[in-house]
Amino acid sequence: MVAAEDPESFFAAAPPLGDAGAVAARLQEFVARNSSHPSSEGGGRRRVVCVTSGGTTVPLEQRCVRYIDNFSSGHRGAASTEYFLKAGYAVIFVHRRGSCQPFCSFMPDDSFLNLFDVTTESKVQVAESHATVVKKAVGEYCKAIEEGSLLKLPFTTIFEYLQLLKMVATSMSSVSLHGLFYLAAAVSDFYVPWDSMAKHKIQSAGGPLDMRLSQVPKMLPVLRNQWAPLAFCVSFKVSFSSRMVIPWG
Amino acid sequence: MVAAEDPESFFAAAPPLGDAGAVAARLQEFVARNSSHPSSEGGGRRRVVCVTSGGTTVPLEQRCVRYIDNFSSGHRGAASTEYFLKAGYAVIFVHRRGSCQPFCSFMPDDSFLNLFDVTTESKVQVAESHATVVKKAVGEYCKAIEEGSLLKLPFTTIFEYLQLLKMVATSMSSVSLHGLFYLAAAVSDFYVPWDSMAKHKIQSAGGPLDMRLSQVPKMLPVLRNQWAPLAFCVSFKVSFSSRMVIPWG
Repeated sequence: MVAAEDPESFFAAAPPLGDAGAVAARLQEFVARNSSHPSSEGGGRRRVVCVTSGGTTVPLEQRCVRYIDNFSSGHRGAASTEYFLKAGYAVIFVHRRGSCQPFCSFMPDDSFLNLFDVTTESKVQVAESHATVVKKAVGEYCKAIEEGSLLKLPFTTIFEYLQLLKMVATSMSSVSLHGLFYLAAAVSDFYVPWDSMAKHKIQSAGGPLDMRLSQVPKMLPVLRNQWAPLAFCVSFKVSFSSRMVIPWG
Repeated sequence: MVAAEDPESFFAAAPPLGDAGAVAARLQEFVARNSSHPSSEGGGRRRVVCVTSGGTTVPLEQRCVRYIDNFSSGHRGAASTEYFLKAGYAVIFVHRRGSCQPFCSFMPDDSFLNLFDVTTESKVQVAESHATVVKKAVGEYCKAIEEGSLLKLPFTTIFEYLQLLKMVATSMSSVSLHGLFYLAAAVSDFYVPWDSMAKHKIQSAGGPLDMRLSQVPKMLPVLRNQWAPLAFCVSFKVSFSSRMVIPWG
């Protein structure tokens, strides 16, 4: 058995997050503003939760055409974000690009164009059958945006996800016991280290393709012990026989 | 070098398409009705095109948590479908679930909730900034649905995609020279044959993961020579230095 790579080497070898400076600034502003905001329930300051949602990808080529993905719609993270907002939390929603978004669960599966009607006066409007849910969703979404209590940070790859999680965790260390991590993302456990990855699209002329994937270092203990030792953590483990909820806090 | 698996064995071993009977019936009705319909330009019957769009996945487990994906937004296939419809074609849109849909290119990247405004009378409506494009898109989409000239068939895996392509091709053989294949999907060229695939989620306790992927048999020659020998075929090959269009017809 080969030991999993250690967290330091993982971050040292990962392609750096695009826009890291801007993300750090937005995070710092968001956490500072919300954590100094009185709680809507009175008696304290607003709590901050980081919700992770959707699956991470593992690129197989540096100029990526193929990648390994983890199946996850992001429903759990998106729905939980709605509940946290209603409960008065400020939410950092770290989500897979294109996965479910908060307040969008009413979207038709087939085509969202089915939401609309063209009226007899040739005006486009929300179809009557959907008007109530759309109005409620838009209202709640606008409220969260106006209150500045929702920060959305997208990721695609395992490299982006873990760098974002580290940034969020360290920026939340200032809120200590008022911080919560709700880790609903489906995180890759095998990956191809960046420096051993093919540069271009792997060609298909040469017969079968053999691949060796390394284990992604376990980051949950690092989050718990180093990045945010005072925060409360909730994580999930998939099981097909039942869904197990394992609280770590 | 190991020879690619032959097409017959691929189909024999693939998990059967769900709902194959219903799909076949819809295809037969769609092709028969449209190919007997006079062309909107007069002088002939309506042409039928099969547009494939988005990337196929390769499951790594039979009860799939992880899969290899091919990067493709589906923009090319969705946009081309719009143009084919405007040009009077009937379109069979074979697309990856969740990929771009025809007439949806105006969707905001961030959240489609930004499309809406809540008015002072507390009514929800399409924001003025988007009203014109949404109206145009909804109008064109409704027209295609009313005319019965758009059939949407979704896939996720390489197994579903190739079975669908075969069904579409054989059902289109009756339209012979009036048939067109416009193959914009990003199709996996390596896969794990179903019978050698892990049944459950591959566990991460045992160090690195070694995988051997087989080549997907080349189906383009089969389409050209057996399934639809009289149809005109257009396919695409990705290149990062330039985009090459290779007509096969």
